Amino acid sequence: MYIVPERVIADLMTREAAFDAVEKVFAAMAAEDAYNFPVVREAIGHEDALYGFKGGFDRAGLTLGLKAGGYWPHNLEKRGQINHQSTVFLFDPDTGKAHAMVGGNLLTALRTAAASSVSIKHLARDDAKVIGMIGAGHQATFQLRAALEQRNFEKVIGWNLHPEMLPNIEAVAAEAGLPFEAVELDGMRAADVIISITSSFEASLMADHVSPGTHIACMGTDTKGKQEVDPALLVRAEVFTDEVAQSVSIGEAQHAVAQGLIEAADLTQLGAVINGAHPGRSTDDQVTLFDGTGVGLQDLAVAARVVELAVTQGIAIEVDF
Amino acid sequence: MYIVPERVIADLMTREAAFDAVEKVFAAMAAEDAYNFPVVREAIGHEDALYGFKGGFDRAGLTLGLKAGGYWPHNLEKRGQINHQSTVFLFDPDTGKAHAMVGGNLLTALRTAAASSVSIKHLARDDAKVIGMIGAGHQATFQLRAALEQRNFEKVIGWNLHPEMLPNIEAVAAEAGLPFEAVELDGMRAADVIISITSSFEASLMADHVSPGTHIACMGTDTKGKQEVDPALLVRAEVFTDEVAQSVSIGEAQHAVAQGLIEAADLTQLGAVINGAHPGRSTDDQVTLFDGTGVGLQDLAVAARVVELAVTQGIAIEVDF
Repeated sequence: MYIVPERVIADLMTREAAFDAVEKVFAAMAAEDAYNFPVVREAIGHEDALYGFKGGFDRAGLTLGLKAGGYWPHNLEKRGQINHQSTVFLFDPDTGKAHAMVGGNLLTALRTAAASSVSIKHLARDDAKVIGMIGAGHQATFQLRAALEQRNFEKVIGWNLHPEMLPNIEAVAAEAGLPFEAVELDGMRAADVIISITSSFEASLMADHVSPGTHIACMGTDTKGKQEVDPALLVRAEVFTDEVAQSVSIGEAQHAVAQGLIEAADLTQLGAVINGAHPGRSTDDQVTLFDGTGVGLQDLAVAARVVELAVTQGIAIEVDF
Repeated sequence: MYIVPERVIADLMTREAAFDAVEKVFAAMAAEDAYNFPVVREAIGHEDALYGFKGGFDRAGLTLGLKAGGYWPHNLEKRGQINHQSTVFLFDPDTGKAHAMVGGNLLTALRTAAASSVSIKHLARDDAKVIGMIGAGHQATFQLRAALEQRNFEKVIGWNLHPEMLPNIEAVAAEAGLPFEAVELDGMRAADVIISITSSFEASLMADHVSPGTHIACMGTDTKGKQEVDPALLVRAEVFTDEVAQSVSIGEAQHAVAQGLIEAADLTQLGAVINGAHPGRSTDDQVTLFDGTGVGLQDLAVAARVVELAVTQGIAIEVDF
């Protein structure tokens, strides 16, 4: 079996490869060739850690396995290590034997960024010029960098609860040679695409902060209780998601569904648009919203890609297991 | 992190170490220092395989992780590989980083054998002389070999649906210098300890096949629908188990509970006997029954032990992960 340590992944994996892997597996999910297993997530009562497993099987790509790990909130202060720690394990679906073990930290950031990018490719207007960022933490830089590759954006605007973090995303705009402007939330009316990537427990973006024709990718809500946008926005918008079951239970849609504003049947898997089974955006004035909850199959897809790259380039550690 | 491949485990791990690890973790479970996570088990729709994860955390032993793998029914005929394939992954509970990856095939056999042995140590009569085996497959040899170390047995008797397999357990009896006799099921009345280890979907051992004072370890039922013994036996016996929730849902107790003959509150965790919180056997005439369903914490416990042994002996493969 192969081992691909965390430290080699930055030089191996590209945004393009992550994008392609995530787009393909979303399509496989919508075609019912790939499915996620029930998620295990446990507060283990030690170091305030959340730990669990996200597994799945992609029959089309023959990728089987899980991401294991979680959130250790004291890692940084106590040990100078990052708080999110995860590892991906791939298995041979023909035999059940372990096939690969892959560092999952950078991959998680890349697959999350790829998901909003895939939604922009398939749902944003072709002539989108202004991208708005809600959130300016470490993950926001990944989302923005990947998003900028999908349209000919001319400007980045941003809002963050703590404005002193905005230089994080201003720097990414500068990398791409784009002007950056800090705005209030109602300034998001100038955006053609909005990505929200926060760990908020109440709505920041309200329905009247959004102009007709905008595409919104809600990427921060992955737990019961978290919330980034006004539930009314999910009524106004055509809503897409990675996985409907997860969207209505722990994703952004949980609130609009709980309030009876929408129901699961109103949601469309993004993969159906990729497959051509759903037309996606219907008019230039339509608001589209992607609820990106994060599924195990995304992790498996990018991990499988990085193993291929590592083996091809002779970087994978091979162990007779 | 450390890697301990399947091929080195036979020379590293002893029945004594497996027994000790399983006894300690059963005790930790009953003391609520250790708990199992929800089990994920999926028919993946490829190679007729069942695949899943059994995870847990032992706060006392600081062991965190999971066993991943399952049952690939065509491995042997198609590829000459065993059908049950599993791998154990241990994590550092202080940081969430991967700590070890361990071959899980032999360990699963050893931890299952250890469980019935722990039950015999704590529940069988001290003067038990005759041990009866129901089932004579590969796993039965592990159960018998481990059981024979717990009492001064003088004779082994055995029954199997396919009698041509009985030489498997006769050979283990011969190793220990004990006579072996093939019997019909009613011949089990001569046994002081009975271990059933089959993959049956209907009861073999009936209540009137069991004499007063016998200890029975039911080790084969780990799925809805499987069954080894008469539900009436669970009424007659004092019933113990590794984990109550699993026993009543997928263990041997599922049938007696479904028929309203007993309820979850009638079951005692074996760990409570180990801890001294429950007296265990109350009289020489009492029938005791252990429903061994198999929990993830057993796998983690034996894997943690084998990693310690492999590191101490310089056999573990160390990878800068």
